Amino acid sequence: MLMLSGVRTSMEIHAIHWCPAYRHEIAGIVKEVGSSNFKVGDHVGVGTYVNSCRECEHCNDKEEVSCEKGSVFTFNGIDADGSITKGGYSSYIVVHERYCFRIPDGYPLASAAPLLCAGITVYNPMVRHKMNQPGKSLGVIGLGGLGHMAVKFGKAFGLKVTVLSTSVSKKEEALSGLGADNFVITSDLEQMKALYKSLDFIIDTASGDYPFDPYLSLLKTAGVFVLVGFPSEVKFSAVNIGMKTVAGSMTGGTRVIQEMLDFCAANKVYPGIEVIPIQYINEALERMIKNDVKYRFVIDIENSLK
Amino acid sequence: MLMLSGVRTSMEIHAIHWCPAYRHEIAGIVKEVGSSNFKVGDHVGVGTYVNSCRECEHCNDKEEVSCEKGSVFTFNGIDADGSITKGGYSSYIVVHERYCFRIPDGYPLASAAPLLCAGITVYNPMVRHKMNQPGKSLGVIGLGGLGHMAVKFGKAFGLKVTVLSTSVSKKEEALSGLGADNFVITSDLEQMKALYKSLDFIIDTASGDYPFDPYLSLLKTAGVFVLVGFPSEVKFSAVNIGMKTVAGSMTGGTRVIQEMLDFCAANKVYPGIEVIPIQYINEALERMIKNDVKYRFVIDIENSLK
Repeated sequence: MLMLSGVRTSMEIHAIHWCPAYRHEIAGIVKEVGSSNFKVGDHVGVGTYVNSCRECEHCNDKEEVSCEKGSVFTFNGIDADGSITKGGYSSYIVVHERYCFRIPDGYPLASAAPLLCAGITVYNPMVRHKMNQPGKSLGVIGLGGLGHMAVKFGKAFGLKVTVLSTSVSKKEEALSGLGADNFVITSDLEQMKALYKSLDFIIDTASGDYPFDPYLSLLKTAGVFVLVGFPSEVKFSAVNIGMKTVAGSMTGGTRVIQEMLDFCAANKVYPGIEVIPIQYINEALERMIKNDVKYRFVIDIENSLK
Repeated sequence: MLMLSGVRTSMEIHAIHWCPAYRHEIAGIVKEVGSSNFKVGDHVGVGTYVNSCRECEHCNDKEEVSCEKGSVFTFNGIDADGSITKGGYSSYIVVHERYCFRIPDGYPLASAAPLLCAGITVYNPMVRHKMNQPGKSLGVIGLGGLGHMAVKFGKAFGLKVTVLSTSVSKKEEALSGLGADNFVITSDLEQMKALYKSLDFIIDTASGDYPFDPYLSLLKTAGVFVLVGFPSEVKFSAVNIGMKTVAGSMTGGTRVIQEMLDFCAANKVYPGIEVIPIQYINEALERMIKNDVKYRFVIDIENSLK
């Protein structure tokens, strides 16, 4: 039995979101607490980071992801005491309560795990850049783990959602499966032309080194383009920026993560997941390389490690 | 005598801001009105545009500069009736009152004219992107007509202002003349390194095709970079955007222009001007090409055309 002091929380890990970028975000059940706002039995999650300086202006604003000294990644990060963080491939983890999130009653643990990475990566910039105004129009570039969440949040916010994709194979899933209002093949110049100056917002979840100008031209005069993928370079003609905004984003702070979990529970927003045992991980990796997953693998640690 | 109907206003032109980009913005005194909120004798200004569609969402928000159908430039624009706008090189102009601004009592007409272009071009994005938070840090790239106004607004907002320049000849003027807190030569790598991650905002008033990465690296984690110059291309490494925002801007809507004029009068913010007669225009052009003006020429139309 772990002896816990202070505000640390020991949780039994039930599900890990298997994320290509950050490795995993964790959902589980509190087993033991020090002095904490959580109690044994609470359903909680841990995101992409488990520590931060707690004294810079961003930490003071609960925007720890922007911590000036850098937040400590949940997996393979260097913590304040010099130790390497090990993440969630284990039965238990001990975490400071500041970096634990309350998973609302009835919201499945397996569904909560991907929200803590793919979900917050799109929810945070959408809220920060006011993409949550009903009736406005949103373009989503790419329909993978991030993109499908952007479509779901867009619909939950009351937006008119257009999916911008290179592959016609995503069309039915975008329109029927996810409820997007429009689907456009980006290589089809006629379709792109019809969208000219029609979008209030674009969220770019793809990571390709394509030219940005054709996308900026789809935005209305003062539109906002948010980049959450990882291209190597961003390049556009200055004429195309006009009154527009291009912004980057990375996950989110603790305040907005909790807000997103509550929003998802209240609005019945669930990521598309496939739950797998840890023993399936090699096949899952091969399938992930082929984009053969809708949309995120979640590893069932509790049952896998029994 | 002109017969005026509706909400049009006839004004006697006293001063024109001689702007390289838009040609001129106008300040003068109302001589005749239709049904208008202005009365004869009011001091008024006209900015870079004299018309817009008045029905799109941006016009409805008094953000006419972002009019989806395009605002009509004061000079050499095509108005709704197909006529070409002639601007202010004349004794009088007739303008719809929507595009006239009240110049506060006691604020000199000659000083007001450049505010309607150089002033609003920096004031609008500074306010829109929340660069008006006292105590925060602002970098200003370039110290010309736009840059010197950005420094003045920055100080009036209570910011710590650093001027980023290629020329050491601007140093004394930046620090002593304009009251900037810091002056950095951008080619000096040591000085630039000392600024790393220290700025909340940067406003780029230069129009050079320099790399943007060194400037983005000066911003704090979630800093804002606003571009008001005209480079040919914007290019930066995606790694450098992180949580940051890069935004363009062009003058401003009627609501924010009036707000700026009132702010300048209340806070005693005046552009640096040199008032010239129209007959001096050829010498002025030669001096402007050599950057030999602090900081804007204003043509005294009233006395020149007598």
